Amino acid sequence: MTSMPDLIRKKRDGGALSGEEIRTFIRCVTDKTIEECQTGAMLMAIWHKGMVQEEIQALTREMMSSGEVMSWPDEWAGLVVDKHSTGGVGDKVSLVLAPALAACGCKVPMISGRGLAHTGGTLDKLESIPGFQVDQPTSKILEILHSVGCCIVGQTESLVPADGVLYARRDVTSTVDSPPLIAGSIISKKGAESLNALVLDVKFGRGALCKDLDSARELAQLLVSVGKGLDMPTAAVLSRMDSVIGRFVGNSLEVMESLETLKGRGPADLMELVTTLGGVLLQMTGMASDELDGRRQIFDAVNGGAALAKFQAMMEAQGVASETTLMLCSAHADYHTVLGKSQHQMELETLADGVVVDVCGLTLAKVLNELGAGRSTADGPINHSVGAELLVSLGQRVSKGESWLRLQYESPPPSPDQISRLQSALAVEECGNYEVKALVVEVLLP
Amino acid sequence: MTSMPDLIRKKRDGGALSGEEIRTFIRCVTDKTIEECQTGAMLMAIWHKGMVQEEIQALTREMMSSGEVMSWPDEWAGLVVDKHSTGGVGDKVSLVLAPALAACGCKVPMISGRGLAHTGGTLDKLESIPGFQVDQPTSKILEILHSVGCCIVGQTESLVPADGVLYARRDVTSTVDSPPLIAGSIISKKGAESLNALVLDVKFGRGALCKDLDSARELAQLLVSVGKGLDMPTAAVLSRMDSVIGRFVGNSLEVMESLETLKGRGPADLMELVTTLGGVLLQMTGMASDELDGRRQIFDAVNGGAALAKFQAMMEAQGVASETTLMLCSAHADYHTVLGKSQHQMELETLADGVVVDVCGLTLAKVLNELGAGRSTADGPINHSVGAELLVSLGQRVSKGESWLRLQYESPPPSPDQISRLQSALAVEECGNYEVKALVVEVLLP
Repeated sequence: MTSMPDLIRKKRDGGALSGEEIRTFIRCVTDKTIEECQTGAMLMAIWHKGMVQEEIQALTREMMSSGEVMSWPDEWAGLVVDKHSTGGVGDKVSLVLAPALAACGCKVPMISGRGLAHTGGTLDKLESIPGFQVDQPTSKILEILHSVGCCIVGQTESLVPADGVLYARRDVTSTVDSPPLIAGSIISKKGAESLNALVLDVKFGRGALCKDLDSARELAQLLVSVGKGLDMPTAAVLSRMDSVIGRFVGNSLEVMESLETLKGRGPADLMELVTTLGGVLLQMTGMASDELDGRRQIFDAVNGGAALAKFQAMMEAQGVASETTLMLCSAHADYHTVLGKSQHQMELETLADGVVVDVCGLTLAKVLNELGAGRSTADGPINHSVGAELLVSLGQRVSKGESWLRLQYESPPPSPDQISRLQSALAVEECGNYEVKALVVEVLLP
Repeated sequence: MTSMPDLIRKKRDGGALSGEEIRTFIRCVTDKTIEECQTGAMLMAIWHKGMVQEEIQALTREMMSSGEVMSWPDEWAGLVVDKHSTGGVGDKVSLVLAPALAACGCKVPMISGRGLAHTGGTLDKLESIPGFQVDQPTSKILEILHSVGCCIVGQTESLVPADGVLYARRDVTSTVDSPPLIAGSIISKKGAESLNALVLDVKFGRGALCKDLDSARELAQLLVSVGKGLDMPTAAVLSRMDSVIGRFVGNSLEVMESLETLKGRGPADLMELVTTLGGVLLQMTGMASDELDGRRQIFDAVNGGAALAKFQAMMEAQGVASETTLMLCSAHADYHTVLGKSQHQMELETLADGVVVDVCGLTLAKVLNELGAGRSTADGPINHSVGAELLVSLGQRVSKGESWLRLQYESPPPSPDQISRLQSALAVEECGNYEVKALVVEVLLP
């Protein structure tokens, strides 16, 4: 057997690791016989030298096989679907899409993550609902899929343990943004869910992991082909991520906006993402005749209230008290009595007359995370009620002194530096001309 | 303060780390607050992106300052010298040079290492002498330098602890051959010895770390300049390392050959290295008027018996019994009664008539290490009596069937594959014309 230093040297020098060599690496990562410094060195060597398609395929397969691979009742054949997003600002798509897909007859074992860097995490958002339990054993996941059709849960320890190890190491060794490691991590986890269809929301722009369309397309193509290599039909949607999805950023506020969307009062951009991603999945499973039909079914599930009912049932199944779910799902909910409210709020005013030509989601997210909306360390605390509401839209004409952002915060208040960075996120031009850009730019079908 | 992932990212992207950033890295390595996987990732990032001169200087200084820095009595000012070799096959220079320098009036606190990869280690060689204690506290080193003038010891825990950590990590993460890391490791340790003059034997060729003269010269220039940056006058000798230094390879056998050399019966190539390296040091300290005078003083110390007397005193000071040192240093010593002898020996025969045009030291060393002369793991056992004696010289005419290598081994005997690899180390050409190449190619003075 080749030794670990030899494997590292081979990758360091740009060689392609064989299937057997990748199996050795992942097995040693899983059973912890690799030395930690060797894991770091191998991750950095992969970051520098990349991997060819065969290596990525082997990496993904070995990671998937490092733990439990789920199995579903025969009668669900063709119905088990999931969606994954590469992460954005104000990205609450999962909270609306999972119940909408369940309302359309799908089984959605959605295994989500927590916030990382400036992007928010679906689990963090759901935990702002009192009682919501994101950690569920496999048996309970099966039970909820039977009774409700969807659940949104955290990764169990038995699922892809190799990724559990590598993910944490990537974060502290600055090797997160490596296409082979991204593909291995995402697709191995989805592969272990034994899906019949997977759609990926690959975002590009300032607020995304991929800064431009080309790199996003490259990543999307890689993810689609690696999914295919696991015999899992995989599609990808390329969507723009410069500003904010919807109008709210922050955990409680995003749950509130998701509920408003499930009540038919959601923002257009969020609905476009939900219907596009859901439409692709329904088309892939054959439950819709084409993508347009799929979009329509999702649209109807959201606007007709069926998705809201599923969300309510899912909350109850995952531990939320009935009176809480009833309150949250009522037409005129007073969200703050349940979700909590930040102690303080302030409004930021525009500094000039003109047209709003830009809102930088990344800048907003970074400052909000500093104020407690996100984590600075992997297991740090977060404050669910910290967040912000965008009061203006791109292309809107504003007058100087008009409020453009409502900030929800706890003590200590934002510093002058933080305030000025928030202000820098807004661009207003006197004779500005805002050109509307499509949110969804491309769809890559399997 | 910049976080460790930020430091790693900066180096990963090819940035130059500031003095403050390198201090943070080395401090975290020393106090073990860095995560092991981060150490591995940083080493691999440095391997890939290198370091500029200022970074290497800061790295070396911070490593040196991570532990004790030795101090010497005022009356030794200008006399404290040492030599370091980048490692070769049959390289027993230290065993002859340290006592020769002491005989010339120098103080030589020689801190040596153990065998790594195919190269032998001075400490391993000395430990084939019964009773020789390579681990000595600083106080004892000072005492031996007072009474004898030289000692050859292992690294103490208090000296450059950062290198203790990084050296072991480099080995298992395949990041040994990185110029900044080599320079940091070598020069920080020599800096902590507070030397007045240091000479480096930078070897090039098949049996060396540097495979060609250009890369050796580049490394030598780097080491010389980093030494200078610590205000430690540093010179370098570039010497060829294709075959074997002397005629013996293996721990006991090399001690024997060193003793023979100290008795005036050493091989010419070993004497050339000893006198060149020693001559440079005597010139640097001003104890010799020029390099030639320095060489002559070293030559006389070796051939006149003064160096042998120092070696004998050093052995006694480091724990060897008087009767043992007497036996080893007598003119007609029966070395094997003291140093032990391998159970078996065999002679390999030449396969053709012709001229010996090549002996590959690397191949010999690798097979001998497999037979027990070296280690396969950092703290694995070695067999001191395993080794080989070269029975032919380069350029010598041989007849088919003539013995060219005497192998000393323990059970199990060498495999057919090992025998055939040993045979492949010898190149005999019918009409061969061996051109003698200079052993010492260049001297870089400070």
